[in-house]
Amino acid sequence: MKCLVTGCAGFIGSNLTDRLLAQGHEVIGIDNFSTGMPEFLKNALQSKNFKLIEADLLQQGPLIQAMKEVNTVFHLAANADVRFGTNHPHKDLEQNTIVTFNVLEAMRANKVKRIVFASTGSIYGETDVFPTPEHAPFPTQTSLYGASKLAAEGMIQAYAEGFDYQAYIFRFVSILGERYSHGHVFDFYKKLLRNSNELHVLGNGKQRKSYLYIQDCMDAIFYALEHSKQKVNIFNLGTNEYVEVNDSIGWICEYLDLKPQLQYEGGERGWIGDNPFIFLDCGRIRKLGWQPRLSIRDGIIKTLEYLQKNLWLLEKRA
Amino acid sequence: MKCLVTGCAGFIGSNLTDRLLAQGHEVIGIDNFSTGMPEFLKNALQSKNFKLIEADLLQQGPLIQAMKEVNTVFHLAANADVRFGTNHPHKDLEQNTIVTFNVLEAMRANKVKRIVFASTGSIYGETDVFPTPEHAPFPTQTSLYGASKLAAEGMIQAYAEGFDYQAYIFRFVSILGERYSHGHVFDFYKKLLRNSNELHVLGNGKQRKSYLYIQDCMDAIFYALEHSKQKVNIFNLGTNEYVEVNDSIGWICEYLDLKPQLQYEGGERGWIGDNPFIFLDCGRIRKLGWQPRLSIRDGIIKTLEYLQKNLWLLEKRA
Repeated sequence: MKCLVTGCAGFIGSNLTDRLLAQGHEVIGIDNFSTGMPEFLKNALQSKNFKLIEADLLQQGPLIQAMKEVNTVFHLAANADVRFGTNHPHKDLEQNTIVTFNVLEAMRANKVKRIVFASTGSIYGETDVFPTPEHAPFPTQTSLYGASKLAAEGMIQAYAEGFDYQAYIFRFVSILGERYSHGHVFDFYKKLLRNSNELHVLGNGKQRKSYLYIQDCMDAIFYALEHSKQKVNIFNLGTNEYVEVNDSIGWICEYLDLKPQLQYEGGERGWIGDNPFIFLDCGRIRKLGWQPRLSIRDGIIKTLEYLQKNLWLLEKRA
Repeated sequence: MKCLVTGCAGFIGSNLTDRLLAQGHEVIGIDNFSTGMPEFLKNALQSKNFKLIEADLLQQGPLIQAMKEVNTVFHLAANADVRFGTNHPHKDLEQNTIVTFNVLEAMRANKVKRIVFASTGSIYGETDVFPTPEHAPFPTQTSLYGASKLAAEGMIQAYAEGFDYQAYIFRFVSILGERYSHGHVFDFYKKLLRNSNELHVLGNGKQRKSYLYIQDCMDAIFYALEHSKQKVNIFNLGTNEYVEVNDSIGWICEYLDLKPQLQYEGGERGWIGDNPFIFLDCGRIRKLGWQPRLSIRDGIIKTLEYLQKNLWLLEKRA
């Protein structure tokens, strides 16, 4: 089939692009390279089945053009920066909400009826149900990022109803692994390379978070596409565990054989809107038959192995 | 206090404006008169405490100007047309989602910290929990209107967290009463004036819906503002009952002393995305001490009395 991947040069988008190409699909990739990395497309660009379009999705024209004869849209382009949302609120509105609208409209213009969307566990805000299932109580948003993904999900669902689309919405925990290029493992590793004697930690280190290895995430997406055929298919994606930031620090230091002095900024949140506990109930997709192969600890180690072999990435990301 | 009311010339906005003025508050009203009625502001314009600004909220400039020294923003401006959403999807995005963002940003520019927002029971999509409480299971959206209100709610909640705003979000059932100018009572009355022998009904007439009388709705808003002091205050607003469209037709015909032949279009929905059953659990605000004075039947009769005295309104609304 012919697929369109938005955000094809991003961490998740480029892994997905490689997977789709490996499965023999034709892939149109779009990226504006605001955070995407040309280096992530090295494999893809060698394939005759891959076509790269450099475009900003705030412009509808190129998007409508690109979507001709496409069967499925994988919409991964987003401002994925949860932490600094309050510094530039328009970014989440534009890059996540409005861009998703543009994608949905371009689909309508081209009669494309299937969309796969990368959502987030942040959408549950600060729930009090753990692990958190897809049908958790109607949440209150605590971040502009979460709010913008909620807005996008809502539109996708309404288009599914109004225009007979089929939608796959995946609410991810934080994803780790090859091409991972922002988040706490990245930050800690970078800080430790600079100064291995001390490590500054946002919050009190007791924030409980969940992670999933990128290849497990990819497997889950394809598994759901094959085994779930509702009009609107919503799945949490994560492992059956969570870890404390302190656990993660311990594994990172053990792997790197370092004993830095830990300096905690304090408070139960790393920043305003940081969610001190994320742990998703992934029973829905597990019931279909999928399960992750890597534990959170193994995912963190895989990520460090990748970063060690790709130090250029640490330079590129301020 | 000094208040700003967006959509001040609308059905709900003009009633709210009159109430605020009667309480002695200063009111800045904004409307672009796309659906607002200058006639609804006759009372308000006689008050020295009222200032009207004709502006489109897609423009940030006038909004930022208007919000100077304002204490509380009542954000009622919206595309309130649920039914024809799929005819012009950009309208809900622009008039509901983006406009709410502009309101939140204008508040930030002026350090205004309190917002009251008119949301909707449509946000629960096609839930299977009746009556539906505020903490119902995370819903799936079925209309672009509901999706846009969900987007707006999410942003308001995230701003409350990120910028320390206080937010009051009211999820209304359909509101009836003085200045009511769109919805089924309006449509039926208009059709019957034209031809009292037959009445065309969308769907099978068995859709179960809830309604609330505008003055009860106003009372509830002021009651909540006085008695609930959370950072984010979310309340369903409705009566403790629902009616079938057929009940409503019966009361309308009885009041008008007509016996039209009923022609049903059939199907359990009046249109794509129509929700065949809306019934909100309003226990949260009832526990605070508020309760509606009028039943749905009485609200419908009051609405007919109003429409009979204001036939100009039927002419104005196509």
